[in-house]
Amino acid sequence: MADAQRIYIAIVGVGGVGKAFLPQFAHLQKRLDSQQPPVDLRLILARKSNKQVLTERYNGLDPNSVLDTLNESKKPYLDFDEILGFLESAPGKVVLVDNTADLGLGKQYPKCLKRGISVVTPNKKAFSDTWKLWESIFDAAAQGGSHVFHEATVGAGLPVLSTLKELIETGDEVTKIEGVFSGTMSFLFNAFMPVGGGGGKFSAEVKKAKDLGYTEPDPRDDLNGLDVARKLTILARLVGLQIESPTSFPVQSLIPSALESCSSGDEFMEKLPNHDDEMEKIKDGAAKEGKVLRFVGSIDVASKAVKVGLEKFDSDHPIAALKGSDNIINFYTKRYGSNPLIIQGAGAGGDVTAMGVTGDLIKVIRLLQGQ
Amino acid sequence: MADAQRIYIAIVGVGGVGKAFLPQFAHLQKRLDSQQPPVDLRLILARKSNKQVLTERYNGLDPNSVLDTLNESKKPYLDFDEILGFLESAPGKVVLVDNTADLGLGKQYPKCLKRGISVVTPNKKAFSDTWKLWESIFDAAAQGGSHVFHEATVGAGLPVLSTLKELIETGDEVTKIEGVFSGTMSFLFNAFMPVGGGGGKFSAEVKKAKDLGYTEPDPRDDLNGLDVARKLTILARLVGLQIESPTSFPVQSLIPSALESCSSGDEFMEKLPNHDDEMEKIKDGAAKEGKVLRFVGSIDVASKAVKVGLEKFDSDHPIAALKGSDNIINFYTKRYGSNPLIIQGAGAGGDVTAMGVTGDLIKVIRLLQGQ
Repeated sequence: MADAQRIYIAIVGVGGVGKAFLPQFAHLQKRLDSQQPPVDLRLILARKSNKQVLTERYNGLDPNSVLDTLNESKKPYLDFDEILGFLESAPGKVVLVDNTADLGLGKQYPKCLKRGISVVTPNKKAFSDTWKLWESIFDAAAQGGSHVFHEATVGAGLPVLSTLKELIETGDEVTKIEGVFSGTMSFLFNAFMPVGGGGGKFSAEVKKAKDLGYTEPDPRDDLNGLDVARKLTILARLVGLQIESPTSFPVQSLIPSALESCSSGDEFMEKLPNHDDEMEKIKDGAAKEGKVLRFVGSIDVASKAVKVGLEKFDSDHPIAALKGSDNIINFYTKRYGSNPLIIQGAGAGGDVTAMGVTGDLIKVIRLLQGQ
Repeated sequence: MADAQRIYIAIVGVGGVGKAFLPQFAHLQKRLDSQQPPVDLRLILARKSNKQVLTERYNGLDPNSVLDTLNESKKPYLDFDEILGFLESAPGKVVLVDNTADLGLGKQYPKCLKRGISVVTPNKKAFSDTWKLWESIFDAAAQGGSHVFHEATVGAGLPVLSTLKELIETGDEVTKIEGVFSGTMSFLFNAFMPVGGGGGKFSAEVKKAKDLGYTEPDPRDDLNGLDVARKLTILARLVGLQIESPTSFPVQSLIPSALESCSSGDEFMEKLPNHDDEMEKIKDGAAKEGKVLRFVGSIDVASKAVKVGLEKFDSDHPIAALKGSDNIINFYTKRYGSNPLIIQGAGAGGDVTAMGVTGDLIKVIRLLQGQ
């Protein structure tokens, strides 16, 4: 019977995704401990914005109680270089699980990866910032012999990036990617313009989505299209396009220009009903063509055209028929011909996002095993 | 710069999938040869039903010309134990790529895996035969420290098995799997009973599908439901159900009982029009409920109920809206709630099936690297 191999895990972020990740991690730890040969996952660091706990001698923290331990911690807050020193000195391979949406931490990935520390994360800001950061992340991983996975940056737990990578790596030619990449926008337009007619005023549907918790606390953070633009940036880069940033291609904002200067989300929500006519006109135009409106992102690979905004679809198109807050991603490729390869399902929420992270962690562990 | 690592590849089967696999393999070989650190994939064996070529000193065959070399080979045909001896003596890790649908070869997997030879294959007979064979395949891999992947046994290149495995491994609870798992059956029922009405007589649609090459040479091999039952057997086993064989649960055959004794496919096709009334009656029944007929497989995990056959669906159900010969697989899980995770696209054809095999080969190579 082989000795257990030890892999050291550091977790940063205990918000919605981080909290959902902990029980998934505990489940994985238990499973790997009982398999043959066993793998001993040691949780050696948990960190949030102003606190951290780390183990003195690289013995393990209990993932089931680490949240309390973290909240009660009175230890001085270390800067990231001190954390990095601690991780680097671990007597084995280390994986950093970043469950934050913090670009600052994303900028530290190259340093980690170069020193052999692998990274798994749903942090889309890190992968949709400058092209330079993107390049330095993957260069650092190659240099350090470490691994970096970020499945949950697009479509949460849906197998979007892994499928795209496999299409490319097996030699298929991806010609176009098109889909609904935001749970908020999906919910909003499935309600504003359902197939078969109906739907309320745009401002009323935004308010409903906000009240149900489907939007960010400030709905402008969804309506400006930037979240979708970040995801498209990541997909386009994977497909081989050198996209400088999520603002370097056309992104349609649904914030009426007159309301761009609102000083708060509340003021915006109050004034939005005054602009319902603008959206109603676009809706009527689509209805006259027998189509529905959806907020989509698309990448046309040959022409290198990336864009985000409203598009019209026939009512029997899979994008029109979407339900609830589901995402849908259509991959058009040479091999798949006229009917795309489609991935569909919930693309937001703590549990399914954490699943993307845990799935990535499993992949990294498999790659580290036996090394 | 690290030395190239060598991995030895043996290919069996040069039919539809095998022929499509060769250029994908050549593409992969080239890519891995130029990456850092490089991996040298050496093709050391190509084999078909009555011929083989193997390299004397484990130097490599050229995948671009191996088909000709194989067809011109005059060497005596070796039995599988001799082949196994040759593979086992290779000076490094070996992967057997089985592109046949040969159960006999499937029964050799345990021997290969136990000796450290990994296996990737679309051979669904091997994974849907007896429970004993299934168990001995995975036991042998664990014993031999080798890897076995068979993504293309369900849905060809669609990421069906990898997604199911990830749901389970990350701790989700799969409650139900339902879908259209046969390109032939998809094409047949999308034509026989399209959403919105229409469609010809059943026998005429079967003939059309046959003429277009969507069925097996003998259409009874599709209509008996066994192909779908084999795929359901594999999925059910992965989800934890101990399914003895593809005939140990209800499978509806669309071969009229009076035609079961036909001695040839031609005789069957000739007599099928006499039985159109039976199918027409079922179609009318569904139409009266405003539904359409589809040939589906389903697994209800809690009740351990696996079944294959005709079901009725509302016209706005994703299964009803399927196009052409596409497959669709719906995973209902605790985490994804009422809206399933859906994978959809072409589920048959040489290129997309070979893609599933190549994708698996890439995974095995990653796992073998550094070992």
